[in-house]
Amino acid sequence: MTTRVALAGYGNLGRAFAALVEAQEDMELVAVFSRRPEITAPAPVIPLDQAEQHAADVDVLALCLGSATDIPALAPGLARTFTTVDTYDNHHLIPDHRAAMDEAARAGGNVAVISTGWDPGLFSLNRALAGALFPAPSQQTFWGEGVSQGHSDAVRRITGVRRAVQYTVPAEQALNAARAGDADQLSATDVHTRVVYVVADEADHERIASEIVSMPDYFEPYETSVTFIDEETFEAEHTGMPHGGHVITTGTLAQARATVEFALTLESNPEFTAAVQVAYVRAAARLREAGQTGAFTVFDIAPALLTRESVDDLVSNLL
Amino acid sequence: MTTRVALAGYGNLGRAFAALVEAQEDMELVAVFSRRPEITAPAPVIPLDQAEQHAADVDVLALCLGSATDIPALAPGLARTFTTVDTYDNHHLIPDHRAAMDEAARAGGNVAVISTGWDPGLFSLNRALAGALFPAPSQQTFWGEGVSQGHSDAVRRITGVRRAVQYTVPAEQALNAARAGDADQLSATDVHTRVVYVVADEADHERIASEIVSMPDYFEPYETSVTFIDEETFEAEHTGMPHGGHVITTGTLAQARATVEFALTLESNPEFTAAVQVAYVRAAARLREAGQTGAFTVFDIAPALLTRESVDDLVSNLL
Repeated sequence: MTTRVALAGYGNLGRAFAALVEAQEDMELVAVFSRRPEITAPAPVIPLDQAEQHAADVDVLALCLGSATDIPALAPGLARTFTTVDTYDNHHLIPDHRAAMDEAARAGGNVAVISTGWDPGLFSLNRALAGALFPAPSQQTFWGEGVSQGHSDAVRRITGVRRAVQYTVPAEQALNAARAGDADQLSATDVHTRVVYVVADEADHERIASEIVSMPDYFEPYETSVTFIDEETFEAEHTGMPHGGHVITTGTLAQARATVEFALTLESNPEFTAAVQVAYVRAAARLREAGQTGAFTVFDIAPALLTRESVDDLVSNLL
Repeated sequence: MTTRVALAGYGNLGRAFAALVEAQEDMELVAVFSRRPEITAPAPVIPLDQAEQHAADVDVLALCLGSATDIPALAPGLARTFTTVDTYDNHHLIPDHRAAMDEAARAGGNVAVISTGWDPGLFSLNRALAGALFPAPSQQTFWGEGVSQGHSDAVRRITGVRRAVQYTVPAEQALNAARAGDADQLSATDVHTRVVYVVADEADHERIASEIVSMPDYFEPYETSVTFIDEETFEAEHTGMPHGGHVITTGTLAQARATVEFALTLESNPEFTAAVQVAYVRAAARLREAGQTGAFTVFDIAPALLTRESVDDLVSNLL
């Protein structure tokens, strides 16, 4: 059976998602819902505010919208009409998002898979999985060095910012402490620093820098550096979107030590985020087909639901 | 609610399992079923052939028996009476084991979680998860350098073998090919070699070496070296059980490359295998409680079922 997939929001994530759906034999991209109906896309482009009229033609709607304002504003409304999969990434507010999506999805008889991608997403899954193995796990997550879409997006929304990028950089002494099983005393803010490059008029620099470093959850209380550069430097040096990171879990089992590490090296953060979202679209379609409703997280979904292969094939080929 | 856990088979795996259950606040070890009732253990020791008389006192039975002969011979019978979790590790025969356990568990109204541990087990889960993300994944699993319990056990069952250990050793050129995304042309037998150390009477050496290298699935068609050593050398150099390995998955998504790596470094293979089995005991108890029956694999089980924490706590703390 082919899953009829639509997406809402055609930025970096949406474009990568559309390209990856085209590579899936079991999915078809049937619509792109956008507030910019003038764009071209590999499926019919429909104004976002008319999405609900097309609900009968869509099995799963991928929400490729920004987490800073679009998802909180739009996602629960869409979850009343569609089975959705999002990549909402504001960690501290995910419980609120989950509650809102659960209520909306149940009201509409839909499934809402929330906060997929790699962090939140696959990294969260590995934190839970590895943590479950140890009586007293010591666990550290390292991001980067790489671009954070969510943080860059948040900076770009500040008035006067023409272009901006945020790199998350792991602190070397923290990496070494985790490898030695000796990182429990580190706080989240010891582990990474945030490095921001911004293109803006000089008159706005002081205000913009102040707004960035004081933005709660996103930048405050992290150590953040803001550097203003010109358009040409930005274009030459800061338009790629590499990322990656490590989840390191270690501890003593009964008497012996074990270390579990999950690591990603990504040339394109939005492409990989979209790849994870595509796999959870497959799970969402299967959950909906099985009569489930409400919000689901990566913790709630069995690995077999993500794969094209049947469980029989997984058992024969991968177990 | 406390899960009442029993185990069958008190070798290296069973002892590690017993020690780890004692560290779980939500589990209690209520019985050790053994063919050697003279042993001492941290719970009452009951002859294995009397296990069924104690079914009413046990929520989940961990099968800590060897894969070479004990599991095929005994596991389906036990699955008719108990909800079970095993670590059956003969990859090629897992589909048969799954079918036998599914039939037995359904007949008894029980759950049988099969082939947990790390490979099969967590490595299998990561092969499925990472493979689901790529249109055309290139995936390689590397084991070791470390001791394989299953292979060592198989050697020990050969007549005349007094002590034996098998190390699985990744081939260096294969590791480098996988890191370069260039390993698809390697066969399973290119990737690892098998190194066996045996203590036996000299008169038996030739026959034992021949039986080892020709043992199907376990050693044939791998490159296998067999070295006979004396008891003192074995005791001094070959009594630890370290292991580890890597699952490396790489490929192009839409346009960009990504690499996903899951790695384990283990001081004690049986302790880590037992730690995974303990987590799946938790899942088995929850599946049984939810009214499920039949065989389950790591592919069928949502990560949340493995953890002590509630999904609300996982969402707040780890998503």
